[in-house]
Amino acid sequence: MIESQVPLTVAPLDPDALALARTAIPDESTLTGVVRALQLLGDMTRARILYALARTPLCVRDLALAANVSESAVSHQLRLLRERNLVRRHRRGTVIVYSLEDHHVAALFHEAEYHADHVRQGLPDHTYP
Amino acid sequence: MIESQVPLTVAPLDPDALALARTAIPDESTLTGVVRALQLLGDMTRARILYALARTPLCVRDLALAANVSESAVSHQLRLLRERNLVRRHRRGTVIVYSLEDHHVAALFHEAEYHADHVRQGLPDHTYP
Repeated sequence: MIESQVPLTVAPLDPDALALARTAIPDESTLTGVVRALQLLGDMTRARILYALARTPLCVRDLALAANVSESAVSHQLRLLRERNLVRRHRRGTVIVYSLEDHHVAALFHEAEYHADHVRQGLPDHTYP
Repeated sequence: MIESQVPLTVAPLDPDALALARTAIPDESTLTGVVRALQLLGDMTRARILYALARTPLCVRDLALAANVSESAVSHQLRLLRERNLVRRHRRGTVIVYSLEDHHVAALFHEAEYHADHVRQGLPDHTYP
């Protein structure tokens, strides 16, 4: 992404607040990781799969039934989620089941739900006097 | 998005797990809200702005300096974030400053950082025997 640069000659209006803000923004590597995680989770089918796996381990067929997509669609997304260490697979008897690798994902969805609910409420912005 | 439908004749391998999974997946409206929120937050500039505002209220100029983008880029993103009730603006003396409307956003980033860290560690997947 091309971002236009701010001329170095612009003086901050509130230098103290700017200094605080600069310490609040994580380094590029962390920020990239955070943004990529959010992008990965921002997909309806992957979200359904992860919600389901947050509750219980499942095989591909039952995941397909739960998420209401084809088994091949589920397999494709599971491959992606395994590559990103979000999901792992293991054998249970004769069946391969998948489960959540990282329980922060469940917490993340939980927070996103609060936010979605906040948006849905459509709380009015403070009016500009 | 077109999703292929699963034939109704497919029987689940584990009906109890499937029933659990179905209760775990939120309704379409909530799921859409969650996914849209994650998509909105999955952008480097917006992430920088929200991290900064999670720490302190800022005016457009200081936000531009903190996020290292132009003031017009910041204004554009702030408009979007205000429309989604993530950010609000208010007057402080002669200056218009912006602050975070919804502190779940900060918690959400926090969880995404844990996840990003988990991915970065590259924990090996359990091998398939």
